[in-house]
Parts: sequence; structure tokens; C-alpha cells
Amino acid sequence: MKLQIAIDIADTNEALEIAGKIYDIIDIVEIGTPMIIMEGLAPVKAMKKRFPGLMVLADTKIVDGGELECRYACDAGADIVTVLAMAADETVEIVAATAHRYGRMVMADLIGVTNIADRARQIERLGVDYICVHTAADVQKKGRTPLGDLRLLTAAIPADKTAVAGGISIKTIDEYKDMNPAIIISGSALTRAPDVRAATKEMKAAIAVKHQNKTTPVRERSWEHGKT
Amino acid sequence: MKLQIAIDIADTNEALEIAGKIYDIIDIVEIGTPMIIMEGLAPVKAMKKRFPGLMVLADTKIVDGGELECRYACDAGADIVTVLAMAADETVEIVAATAHRYGRMVMADLIGVTNIADRARQIERLGVDYICVHTAADVQKKGRTPLGDLRLLTAAIPADKTAVAGGISIKTIDEYKDMNPAIIISGSALTRAPDVRAATKEMKAAIAVKHQNKTTPVRERSWEHGKT
Repeated sequence: MKLQIAIDIADTNEALEIAGKIYDIIDIVEIGTPMIIMEGLAPVKAMKKRFPGLMVLADTKIVDGGELECRYACDAGADIVTVLAMAADETVEIVAATAHRYGRMVMADLIGVTNIADRARQIERLGVDYICVHTAADVQKKGRTPLGDLRLLTAAIPADKTAVAGGISIKTIDEYKDMNPAIIISGSALTRAPDVRAATKEMKAAIAVKHQNKTTPVRERSWEHGKT
Repeated sequence: MKLQIAIDIADTNEALEIAGKIYDIIDIVEIGTPMIIMEGLAPVKAMKKRFPGLMVLADTKIVDGGELECRYACDAGADIVTVLAMAADETVEIVAATAHRYGRMVMADLIGVTNIADRARQIERLGVDYICVHTAADVQKKGRTPLGDLRLLTAAIPADKTAVAGGISIKTIDEYKDMNPAIIISGSALTRAPDVRAATKEMKAAIAVKHQNKTTPVRERSWEHGKT
């Protein structure tokens, strides 16, 4: 289970500053859509230059012009590019093919999709690497969470392709990690915490504990306990 | 009937150069999504600074974070901001409210929407100024056009709120203008023409003729003919 931190409201310098505090304890840093609308792919390029070993996701939310826009993101250094699951199959397919030509990955974002299971299965066949259930920030305000959607997603496609985003915090993490998604995405709960590193460490630890429980058989764990 | 030129594949300088050739004969210049992904809102700002009297549309295709992203676009000087019709009602509504607070306008893009008429009617009630049927570039490659969708749209909402995009050129303009949409959007057919100004003039003239026929009663036209 990977931890992805979404940086949405920041300029390039602020994003680099946030990443500088946590680059060694997170798995993926996301340059959020508002940042891309504001500055384009400059923050992706800057992030990759400053932290070459850190996986950078460009939340481009491509919905058309798949080859061109994905190429732009890959040229800027993005390791993962996002496409909307609502986009035409042709777009999803060409985004995946283009990213793979670069040796990069694609995450399809199910934001706004109502038939989660069906569309996830279709999208998976189009070659994307990850599929993400995502409750829009504008919709979270009404109290909705992506929990039910994640349940539908993990039932529809292999868990190692699933991701979840939408207001996840340390308070709610347990419910999500129980479903063992490949990537858990957290944004302002971490980036706007009083101590970003402490909050991120806490989240990472919460995820790691569960991960260990899931992957380590009881006997081995007992043996490990015996060693300490 | 307004003519909007979409500039998709260009950097800021190239976009300014294209606009410089036609700013006086078009109604709206669009900074396309690929440009925004590449450079953010810088080209919007530059376009508005160079051509303050020209209406600039920022094709942000907002799908979440409506208040924030619309505010960014308005701050950059966009006269019209786009939101995806597939976005949540909450997002469409807040984008419209935010743009109107700035005295700007919003175009909802029906790209990817299958229930054109129903969604257009819903979207109209959410306060957007224009609703655009849009055949994705990736889908045009399969020979699809937005003609049928425009027919559905003009039957569903008032014509003065309709717009159409998706591979429209001088060869196909007649079919579209017959449905009298408020805005006709043309991209590479004009921006990549050997003579951008000549091609744009021809398109503008084609639209204007129809417009005149629609709005001028026969008697007046006869009188005008008599004058010449």
C-alpha cells in the first residue's frame, strides 16, 4: 500500500518546500490539478529535478487529446499521468499507450462516474495501471466519502490496481486500508497539518502496520517477535 | 452567431502571433486545454494583456475544486471559463457563481456526455451561460462529428446558450450554422491554415451571411439589394 500526497493549493516553491519535508517517507507526490491550471507542468518538472528519486504524479485529468497531453506530461517528467475515466475509450487507450511508450504509468480517475464497477472493468481492459475512486472536493462538502465507491472498486478489479482519494485523513484511514487499495491518496489533511512531516509519518505508519499484518503470516510474525 | 477560435497546440508566443492576425475579425479566442496543461494560465494572462478588447476563453475543463480553479482563471483575465458538464452539480454551480461574481461567463462542455438533452437542461438550471456540444478530437478520428449532438442541444435549450465544437471547418460550416448556435468553435481548420487570416475571414463571412438571413426580414433585404 503506497501513500500519495496531493499538493493542490501551492505554487511551485511551496510545493517543493512541502515535498522537502516528506520526500523520504512518501511513495508518490501529486502535483494537483489546481497547480497545473495555475502553472502548467512547471511544478512537475521542478519536483522531478529536485527529487529525482521521488515518484511524481501529474493530475492532468486528461479528457481529450490523449496522445498530446500525455506526451507533454511525460516530457515534463511525470511518472504517473491521470486521465478521466469519463473520457472516451479512445482517449483512455491512447493515454495509456503513450505513457507506456515513455515507461510511465497511468491512473484513471473515476470522479463523477456512477457505474463504478462496470466502468472500472472497461477501463482496466484499456491498459491503465491504476484506477482511482475519487469523491470530488465539491461533493465532500455534502458529507460524502469515497468509502462505498472503494468497496465497489475492489470488488470489480484486482486490488493492486486500485487507488482512493477524497478527504482521507488519519481519522478515517483505518476504514480504507482494510480494503487494501494499492494507493491511498491524502491531500490537505497532510499538507495543511501544523507539522506536515509528523502528520505524514503518522499516516505512513498507520498504513504500514496494516500492510505488515496482511502480508506476513502469523507464524513468521511470532518468530520475529521472538527475535526482538 | 459568434466565431470562437481555439488555439490548442502553441506556446504563448505562437498563440499571440496567431491572435495578432485575426483579433479584429473573431469574437472569442480560446486558450485550449493542451496550452493550459503546458503553461497554466500564463497564455490567458498574456492574451488579455496584448488584446484587452478580445474575449478570451480559458478551456480549463474544471471537474472539481470549482471555486478555486474558476477564481484562478478569472484572476488571469479569462472572460469565459469552461467546466465539464460531467462534473458534479455542486461544481458546475460554484463555477458559474464564481465567474458571475467576477462579471465573467461560464461555458459547460458536454464532452463525453451521452444524455445530451437531459444534462443540458439540468446544467442550464445551474446557471451557466453557454452549453457546448463537443466531439472529442480522439473520437473525431473515428469519423464522428458534433452535428447530431447539436441538433439534440438546440432542441433542449434556447439557441442563444448553445455552442458547438469538434472538427468544424469551412467545408462543414453550413450544416452547423443552419441550427443557429450562439457560438461556433473552430480550431486547427483555421489556426493551421496556410493563411490564417484568409481562412478565418472566409469562416466569419460564411457565418455572417446566414446570420443576416436569419435576422433580416425579406422586405428589408430586398431594399438593401435595391440600394446596391
